[in-house]
Amino acid sequence: MKLQAEEIDLATRSPTVILNATDARELGVNPLDRVQVRGDGTSVVAIVEVTEELVAPGDLGATSRVGHLTGAVEVTPAPRPRSVQYVRKKLDGVELEPFEVRRIAEDITEDRLSDIELSAYVTGAYTRGFSSTETLALTEAMTGAGDRLSWDVDVVADKHSIGGVAGNRVTPILVPIVVAAGVTVPKTSSRAITSPAGTADTMEVFCDVSFDVDGIRRIVAEAGGCLVWGGGVDLSPADDRIIRAEYPLSLDPPGQLVASVLSKKRSAGSTHVVLDVPYGEGAKTGSLDEARELAEEFKKVADHLGLHLTCAITRGQAPIGRGIGPVLEARDVLSVLGGDGPADLRQKSVRLAGLLLDACEVEADAEELLTSGAAETAFRDIVEAQGGDRDVSLDDLVPGAQTHTVEASRAGVVSHVDNGLVSEVARRAGAPRDVRAGLYLERGLGAEVEAGDPLFTLHAEHAGKLAEARELLAGSEPLRVRPAGESVVEHL
Amino acid sequence: MKLQAEEIDLATRSPTVILNATDARELGVNPLDRVQVRGDGTSVVAIVEVTEELVAPGDLGATSRVGHLTGAVEVTPAPRPRSVQYVRKKLDGVELEPFEVRRIAEDITEDRLSDIELSAYVTGAYTRGFSSTETLALTEAMTGAGDRLSWDVDVVADKHSIGGVAGNRVTPILVPIVVAAGVTVPKTSSRAITSPAGTADTMEVFCDVSFDVDGIRRIVAEAGGCLVWGGGVDLSPADDRIIRAEYPLSLDPPGQLVASVLSKKRSAGSTHVVLDVPYGEGAKTGSLDEARELAEEFKKVADHLGLHLTCAITRGQAPIGRGIGPVLEARDVLSVLGGDGPADLRQKSVRLAGLLLDACEVEADAEELLTSGAAETAFRDIVEAQGGDRDVSLDDLVPGAQTHTVEASRAGVVSHVDNGLVSEVARRAGAPRDVRAGLYLERGLGAEVEAGDPLFTLHAEHAGKLAEARELLAGSEPLRVRPAGESVVEHL
Repeated sequence: MKLQAEEIDLATRSPTVILNATDARELGVNPLDRVQVRGDGTSVVAIVEVTEELVAPGDLGATSRVGHLTGAVEVTPAPRPRSVQYVRKKLDGVELEPFEVRRIAEDITEDRLSDIELSAYVTGAYTRGFSSTETLALTEAMTGAGDRLSWDVDVVADKHSIGGVAGNRVTPILVPIVVAAGVTVPKTSSRAITSPAGTADTMEVFCDVSFDVDGIRRIVAEAGGCLVWGGGVDLSPADDRIIRAEYPLSLDPPGQLVASVLSKKRSAGSTHVVLDVPYGEGAKTGSLDEARELAEEFKKVADHLGLHLTCAITRGQAPIGRGIGPVLEARDVLSVLGGDGPADLRQKSVRLAGLLLDACEVEADAEELLTSGAAETAFRDIVEAQGGDRDVSLDDLVPGAQTHTVEASRAGVVSHVDNGLVSEVARRAGAPRDVRAGLYLERGLGAEVEAGDPLFTLHAEHAGKLAEARELLAGSEPLRVRPAGESVVEHL
Repeated sequence: MKLQAEEIDLATRSPTVILNATDARELGVNPLDRVQVRGDGTSVVAIVEVTEELVAPGDLGATSRVGHLTGAVEVTPAPRPRSVQYVRKKLDGVELEPFEVRRIAEDITEDRLSDIELSAYVTGAYTRGFSSTETLALTEAMTGAGDRLSWDVDVVADKHSIGGVAGNRVTPILVPIVVAAGVTVPKTSSRAITSPAGTADTMEVFCDVSFDVDGIRRIVAEAGGCLVWGGGVDLSPADDRIIRAEYPLSLDPPGQLVASVLSKKRSAGSTHVVLDVPYGEGAKTGSLDEARELAEEFKKVADHLGLHLTCAITRGQAPIGRGIGPVLEARDVLSVLGGDGPADLRQKSVRLAGLLLDACEVEADAEELLTSGAAETAFRDIVEAQGGDRDVSLDDLVPGAQTHTVEASRAGVVSHVDNGLVSEVARRAGAPRDVRAGLYLERGLGAEVEAGDPLFTLHAEHAGKLAEARELLAGSEPLRVRPAGESVVEHL
């Protein structure tokens, strides 16, 4: 069918053309079918949407993702991407062949699937699961589809956490320890999506975090490692698309998680990785068994890839460290590097750094590297290489001046710190956008308190946001205090 | 956050606003999150998409589905529709409460879900299935959300087929038989989506089929029944949305199918329904067991609704009737009504009409109503009431003049007629858009043939389309002839 193409200013993710219902019927295509559009020297396959009004009969609306298409075009029905049929197969519970998995990853990377198809893929991965063979094929297909880093050394160390724990700012402490031992650590981290701070948000308190591949190379050459935002490079393009479909329903299919993490590590050129797998109420894996199962799947796939992976299963039922929110977490990090700071954050960082150094077969003592100040120097080198002030001190990291402290209403023991609630309160207070906002835990899990002792302090930059956070506190209890020795949690 | 709203000419299904990435980050919203937008006297919840370029910081792009929104607006994050959390629950394999199912149906009807969420719902329904309780709740929620028909009689008969069989134009024969017995039959049918003709396409050869509620009332008052297109009324708005998500992956979750069919029948005011459930290779249910299971589920839900449902499990491994394509099927219909025509189509129509009359407790013989010409008169009454020529004859129904006949290459028995392939060839020849195009089966399943006997004839309106259909035939065999008595189908 011959149509007249016009560009339509429409933000679609996949190449899309809009047809009038009359033309669509004549062509025999329905919404979400594909058509081949041939114009002046170009040929493109696009997804069909149908309108009664927006586009007149005889015209074709081409979105920017289709490319520049105007004037007379020839439009013919085109088959669906083959991966759609493989997604259907997965929904039917059939294990996919490696070439089928690769085809799906490729079509997602190239934005060939509609939201309907992408979501069917993610829900299929979630409800049917992936075998190790499928996950391996997926990891390989997702590796190297975008940017790739390579290094002139044999050992490149890296770290990742599957998340879900508030605070837990281990990375900016672990990386300098390992760098101080002479190991290359090109660490990329994420910004907060639903949490009050990601590692990239916390590091941005100290220095720039947004660098491209060349920038990362320069920083690592100067400082032996980096602590940058992963969004400045595109180590796994498919992953960004998949997250779009995972996010609305909070789906995190284990096979997909393994493939996403390991493909990024491989694209970053890492050879030795320590993975933090927290478990517990509110964490991503609820039980120790679940955490073990996930860790074993990670190891199995990593082994096949020739990637040295150490999984650390950690307690995740409560926040790690005292600060929640970019500046408050930055203070914890700088304190620990300076020889002080929250004991739990220090201990976990040293342990994970030690596991990583052992894996790299480097003769070095993580504890000693921290105590001696070598790690702090390495951290300040990185901050400087990323354009920050290497002489930054705690005095420069001032939490929001609008504060409110919640006190214990009775004596007892802090029996529960709710990761999700603590995070939500910190977000209401303004984190991560307001970097000085958040929540400071005056007492940690297991601490003994007297009635009237401070439990936690809210910090905000704006009085309005402090009020919003306090509103949320009215009906909830981020920290619970139980009488010491009381075994009954609730009775109904 | 205060933004400046401008309308964006963008064809979205759900109310959507486009935010610049900077503003989205400040608001703490991600793509597919919701925001509440309050403007000059209006307040609306919309889905968020994020752009770097299309909308400038400080502005908000409002699609037409949001309503007319311009000037200063106040934007705040809003929670997701609660149904999203129920969809997630379904994905986790948990049976939903009736109020949760109702909430999902309501949010789909009101277009509150994004394509990602809608697809998760459909794939969840497909992979996890629905209990009868869930299906019943869904059916009730989908009933009466759109147009509703009501009638002044106690008995209103109706018919539906779950489809998948080529030809099979039972409805335009069955409806007049039942109408001739004095029963009201307000039948709505679909157009072809992936087939070469729907009942509405075939009826359109005779008369108009597109009528609103008032039009249907008038026709039924005049002729005792109608044979119209369901798209002219909106008996189940949720169904149209759900089909959008089912179509790309050809998903047809049984629970959803039951709810879609029965909700439409109830909205149409029907009291007694006969349901054609074909089974066999290529049909929607592959085996007799599968067909029985589906039929039992239909009956269970219909019983709860107080709807009298008769399920006819029928052979569906081959087309019913000889013509495939609107005009060719119209010829079969008119022939059978005139006392002639394909024996299988006649027999099936009479049997299903008989089952429906029995169910309605009407003392009438379907065979007799057909033989006497009473059914033909009733059909011509309906055609006239729908604006067609009541004196239409076979001479008026001329198949496409571009023809090609395929002959048997050896003697034997027609052992297989491939529903899917026959349909695809007919579509390539131009059906349903070219109403005279299609395929005529010169021999049916089980017929004895000599080498050189005609097997089927292609009809097209345009030589180019005939050539396209012949191309498809080159590598395929819609009708297979085996030596009589041969038991081995293939050996490898």
